[in-house]
Amino acid sequence: MKPLELKEYLCAQIPIAQALGIDVVSLSAEGVELTAPLEANRNHLGTAFGGSLGSVMILACYAWMFNRLGEDGKNCHVVIQTAQTDYLKPVTGNLRAVCSPPDGAEIERMLRHVDRKGVARLKISSQIVDTSGEVLCRFVGDFVAHVAK
Amino acid sequence: MKPLELKEYLCAQIPIAQALGIDVVSLSAEGVELTAPLEANRNHLGTAFGGSLGSVMILACYAWMFNRLGEDGKNCHVVIQTAQTDYLKPVTGNLRAVCSPPDGAEIERMLRHVDRKGVARLKISSQIVDTSGEVLCRFVGDFVAHVAK
Repeated sequence: MKPLELKEYLCAQIPIAQALGIDVVSLSAEGVELTAPLEANRNHLGTAFGGSLGSVMILACYAWMFNRLGEDGKNCHVVIQTAQTDYLKPVTGNLRAVCSPPDGAEIERMLRHVDRKGVARLKISSQIVDTSGEVLCRFVGDFVAHVAK
Repeated sequence: MKPLELKEYLCAQIPIAQALGIDVVSLSAEGVELTAPLEANRNHLGTAFGGSLGSVMILACYAWMFNRLGEDGKNCHVVIQTAQTDYLKPVTGNLRAVCSPPDGAEIERMLRHVDRKGVARLKISSQIVDTSGEVLCRFVGDFVAHVAK
């Protein structure tokens, strides 16, 4: 899947992704980078709203997993089961979410479970980083893949 | 603060609250109930998007704390510090988030800290419930109040 395809998919399937103003900077097995403008996502203090930050970090993880399953030829639905977010510093500029893949052994285990059981869980992390690379928010979630019927 | 005032405040100050289609059903020291339509918040499976559910539960907690501080005559900013969300079941209808206040002693401690130190933290919970009252998602977050300068 190419970045523009993912953007169009997200905005068509998840209307709030369009309201967030999601853009897909990069998308590969090595990771995902999404951006969203501060203006659409600001709060009463002019910094980024916690719900928007959470949404963009969820979408980065979701996109990575969906794309990784597709690269392996698996047609799966992906849903979120748990989410833990730490808001470390206010986000005063545009939102930039980066998802780095889990450990390779964890990914292989997940792909085997999808084949054997039709369902698998994977813990995936993403972060909001500023232009200097400083981490402003940290997210980790459990995502579940179900083979699509 | 009345429900309509809160709705107008949220939609003016936090543009994504308007995109979520937030409505304020009730607002008092005893709790907050917010709703949002499924259509604006659906995902690729036609159920509610995890990021929207998180956003509505954050807004319910935020609204309760902001309103409670105002009732006590305190002019504070409220921000979120951590969030933990459990997505227990798919949300197949409109989103309904309910925030029940923390224990009274915790609230009193928070109000004293605001007076003494100008800043205080409070753990607040909210839930997504369906029309029969079943809990579909559970949220708990740490919120921080700062006296506005």
